[in-house]
Amino acid sequence: MSITVVGTIGIDSIYTPFGQAENILGGSAVHFTLSAAQFGPVNVVAVAGTDLAGDELAPLRRAGIDITGIEYAAGATFRWGGRYHLDFNTRDTLYTELGVLADFQPKVPEAFRAADILFLANLQPAVQQSVLQQVPHARLRALDTMNYWISSAYDALTEVLRKVDIIIMSEEEVRQFAGESNLRAAARKLFALGPRALVVKLGSYGALLLQTDGSYFAAPGFPLDDVRDPTGAGDAFAGGFLGSLAAVLAGERDLTPADFKRALIYGNIMGSFTCEDFGVARLTRLSPDDIARRYREIIAYTHVETDIPQGK
Amino acid sequence: MSITVVGTIGIDSIYTPFGQAENILGGSAVHFTLSAAQFGPVNVVAVAGTDLAGDELAPLRRAGIDITGIEYAAGATFRWGGRYHLDFNTRDTLYTELGVLADFQPKVPEAFRAADILFLANLQPAVQQSVLQQVPHARLRALDTMNYWISSAYDALTEVLRKVDIIIMSEEEVRQFAGESNLRAAARKLFALGPRALVVKLGSYGALLLQTDGSYFAAPGFPLDDVRDPTGAGDAFAGGFLGSLAAVLAGERDLTPADFKRALIYGNIMGSFTCEDFGVARLTRLSPDDIARRYREIIAYTHVETDIPQGK
Repeated sequence: MSITVVGTIGIDSIYTPFGQAENILGGSAVHFTLSAAQFGPVNVVAVAGTDLAGDELAPLRRAGIDITGIEYAAGATFRWGGRYHLDFNTRDTLYTELGVLADFQPKVPEAFRAADILFLANLQPAVQQSVLQQVPHARLRALDTMNYWISSAYDALTEVLRKVDIIIMSEEEVRQFAGESNLRAAARKLFALGPRALVVKLGSYGALLLQTDGSYFAAPGFPLDDVRDPTGAGDAFAGGFLGSLAAVLAGERDLTPADFKRALIYGNIMGSFTCEDFGVARLTRLSPDDIARRYREIIAYTHVETDIPQGK
Repeated sequence: MSITVVGTIGIDSIYTPFGQAENILGGSAVHFTLSAAQFGPVNVVAVAGTDLAGDELAPLRRAGIDITGIEYAAGATFRWGGRYHLDFNTRDTLYTELGVLADFQPKVPEAFRAADILFLANLQPAVQQSVLQQVPHARLRALDTMNYWISSAYDALTEVLRKVDIIIMSEEEVRQFAGESNLRAAARKLFALGPRALVVKLGSYGALLLQTDGSYFAAPGFPLDDVRDPTGAGDAFAGGFLGSLAAVLAGERDLTPADFKRALIYGNIMGSFTCEDFGVARLTRLSPDDIARRYREIIAYTHVETDIPQGK
């Protein structure tokens, strides 16, 4: 009936060649929930510091997200600062201050454990593991991670990967984890652990979906006229992908291959909106019509009128 | 009725982490013609040294390519050596020996001037200009170039761009020429010069087609299990793209938007075959069935069963 996500809430400062925004709401759980909430109910488990005890999380509440699983701990909220280069493909991390995230031991509220979909946003693998144990009956378990955990906690991450259905990673992370530059070969190594689907995020090039049945699907990136801040685009992608799948499950039917393809397109779309303004600004002023229009456009960008092969 | 291409014939030595091939047939005209010949008649204008006066060009003759426009000059054939890195996305040029290419003044045979399509493969812009003047009535004029000419012969290249219909460039070259990181904005700058279509090669991510009517089409890269040597993939891409368009023109009808979309897919397919073996080895053992099968696969990789947008 819904999605439960465990991830981070952060205070970000972002610098780009074309502008900057300091001390704005960010974090994987924030971008994910504001994206997924466009498709249906979302519950969030996260930790915030007492510096966010005011009305800073109002955008989540206004979007209908259940924030009763957010724990307020004594101390400072997780803080991240980053600077993007001209092409937005590379960024430098200026600082990372874990704050209350350092001792985060997520406790998933009883009411959140019945969610159809559990999403483990990027967090320490041991923490992701403890969440999996608390929500053993989700119909779909999906996970994101980052290069830092692949290099520093490979074994723990491998154990978590054994227990999820869908892996969502960037192209570089897939290659790094599998030690294999060919994506299809890398996918086979990941599938050997147990998951049945791999979503490969390609940044501005879109995303790929590989499944254990050998199927392959490519969704192009949405061509933006103006990129202001890509921070959180990967989390918003996951929100669109899983939110769209949750909406199907809420309709009381099983997921088909077509549902997964549409989900990949929704993922790309939600990631593209995120890039159009700093932080979650674009996600908080988004209408169902905006999404439907971009969906039709992206379909048109790959649609071929006839599939009769031509040749000599 | 056919394509006339002006480009290079070379002798390549290629080193990769997984193998190497020394002194093999290469060059833009060679990769382009062997690709385009899969779709219809091709005429080639190029220069070779006396070191290729034996039967080295037999693969072209066997593919039915008209090689009577190849001039043999006293001296050595153009030679290039390159080394690829692990991910094949970057390569180091080990040496470039122009040889007879240094004084190449293409003379397009009278019979070649009636071709429907003229392709100016990567060559010095002044040389491309002289070819354009010799073939003033082609129905479609397309051009490729490289970063070297963008930085060293920007003005001459700009003059050539004013006289072509289709620009085929890599993503980096588009950005470099336009001084603009956003591809849509870069396309607008290129269109202001006169061309009506821009094909952006994205390497393993496929290709984009942008046209002056605002249309946008994305074709994904074909996912290869094994990449052996990407040399010439861009030229083979151009051969599949233009070869497929030439086959439509040979059918005595005008090109439609659907023809351009299919052409982009054929371009990706021919580029993908090229990567599967060293030099032109894969292109010389390719059947129409191989191409048709890959076309159907790539259509399936992006096809969405229904285009009804879903939402909350």
